[in-house]
Amino acid sequence: MDPSPPLAVTAADIDAAARVLAPFAVRTPLLSSPTLDAATGARVLFKAEVLQRTGSFKFRGAFNKMSAIPQAARAGGVVAFSSGNHAQGVAAAAQLLGMRATIVMPADAPLAKRERTKGYGAEVVLYDRLREDREAIARGLAAERDATLVPPYDDAEIIAGQGTVGREIADDLAALGLAPDIVAAPASGGGLVAGIAVAIKARYPNAMVMTAEPEGFDDHARSLRAGRREAHDGKAQTICDALMAAMPGEITFAINRVLGVRGVVASDAEVGRAVAAAFAELKLVVEPGGAVALAALLAGRFDARGKTVVIVLSGGNVDADLFARLIG
Amino acid sequence: MDPSPPLAVTAADIDAAARVLAPFAVRTPLLSSPTLDAATGARVLFKAEVLQRTGSFKFRGAFNKMSAIPQAARAGGVVAFSSGNHAQGVAAAAQLLGMRATIVMPADAPLAKRERTKGYGAEVVLYDRLREDREAIARGLAAERDATLVPPYDDAEIIAGQGTVGREIADDLAALGLAPDIVAAPASGGGLVAGIAVAIKARYPNAMVMTAEPEGFDDHARSLRAGRREAHDGKAQTICDALMAAMPGEITFAINRVLGVRGVVASDAEVGRAVAAAFAELKLVVEPGGAVALAALLAGRFDARGKTVVIVLSGGNVDADLFARLIG
Repeated sequence: MDPSPPLAVTAADIDAAARVLAPFAVRTPLLSSPTLDAATGARVLFKAEVLQRTGSFKFRGAFNKMSAIPQAARAGGVVAFSSGNHAQGVAAAAQLLGMRATIVMPADAPLAKRERTKGYGAEVVLYDRLREDREAIARGLAAERDATLVPPYDDAEIIAGQGTVGREIADDLAALGLAPDIVAAPASGGGLVAGIAVAIKARYPNAMVMTAEPEGFDDHARSLRAGRREAHDGKAQTICDALMAAMPGEITFAINRVLGVRGVVASDAEVGRAVAAAFAELKLVVEPGGAVALAALLAGRFDARGKTVVIVLSGGNVDADLFARLIG
Repeated sequence: MDPSPPLAVTAADIDAAARVLAPFAVRTPLLSSPTLDAATGARVLFKAEVLQRTGSFKFRGAFNKMSAIPQAARAGGVVAFSSGNHAQGVAAAAQLLGMRATIVMPADAPLAKRERTKGYGAEVVLYDRLREDREAIARGLAAERDATLVPPYDDAEIIAGQGTVGREIADDLAALGLAPDIVAAPASGGGLVAGIAVAIKARYPNAMVMTAEPEGFDDHARSLRAGRREAHDGKAQTICDALMAAMPGEITFAINRVLGVRGVVASDAEVGRAVAAAFAELKLVVEPGGAVALAALLAGRFDARGKTVVIVLSGGNVDADLFARLIG
């Protein structure tokens, strides 16, 4: 019996994605804060993916995926559905690749995310998050326009693109002479964590990779405990608009399960305090969904003391009024 | 006649400071924003010194200066006067070097700066900015306590420390295959710009280095035009609490004058819009005084179109309520 069946994404796929992305993506820095080290008793490195093109890691996967669309199929453009960060990633990638983009977004997505998606030249189609099926709308538009659907996470090329976050973390840790004990990143569909897990475990097999989720949107935590995909109960509210997927992806979960990823959660109040800490101590603008791994660390949701911990700050697209409220 | 008399700070002094600082200072990234490139028509690189230890570049000069204090003189500790960023830089450097620090701060300095200075273990002595002489108070305390006074800018070792900002900019530009046309940084006493000018002109003699100041606090712009040190008229108000020095330093001005530095200004309204742009586009928390060079760029205060422009974002220590107001 083979204890580790071949995964849908390998470290070599991530190396290839890194070559595709090199001229276009920002190589985001791995930052440190002596103040937060002292506060947590850990050696903490922050992967500042808020500094990525479009303000979140989503550009990486979208650009890697869309670069692989054959020239003959590019005329029809692309269609995607997203609450906002994937939308901007796809729109910006389409602009760079000279393709048309149509994005299906919930009508209650943050204004900043809708406006910025249009700012990259995409057409935005709004839907009612509670009553309409965004996937059906997107598939209909793609068929009608002969466009390629760019899925948000459950796709090997998307995952390989997001994995470049983990590859850069591994390179920067090596340059610092550090090995990570824990690498924690926000999870919605799980594409970012799956990509990071492949890249990190290839170089640091003993590192623990963690999904961080808002309380009540803990489908990864539940699924990873159960060993099979489970949905969250869908009844909760959260300020983490980027992290509302109902269930882990099939491909992402297969990777995360095999690589021993574990789930942690943080409450909205803890997330708000993490946004405020990033403002005050890191001088970074982090959106609630992007701060949930930091929130789990600062709230003591996992044992970090004495460890080398990497916290991925995955996005910074937050409306000014919500940000003002959280830091006030 | 020698057209370029020897300067008080050389590129070799900055190299030496870089070696002193390497284990302690953050090597801050040089960031880019395709959105702001498109908005300005320039190739803009942002030196994110808000990510420096203590949230501003001031740590560099303070640590370099204080590292040179002989062991025998360290027991008396250090005294400094500062509206906030130098205060934190000195306090953090003192903590790392195991020295006692006393900081003389204006009673109306931002609360965040006062609290954070205390957080690094310093004793804070408040004074009335309009009625008392902070230098006299600081000199009195230094004499009384047998402490070393750490000046905020007009000192060769302070300037050499700040110059490491320029050295890192030059290294990162070289790695990108770029040469700067313009390097602009905020100026109060002029130590940051003087250090940057020495480092940049040593590697890129044709680059233009600029001081950026708030309107009404334009002592560098006036002095550089006049060829001699002139004070601003002292009647204006500004949200740039970090940039209120009355006149360029003697040493800093001698350097800036010889190296052909030019002055630009920006209004408080332009600074506010720059803080908001840094929030929305760069995902960085920049304090008003740290954003004044960005403000001058975005307001078209100098001709940037088609040029490679480096903007130094020098600090990010801003109270949450003011920040919320500026991004709102």
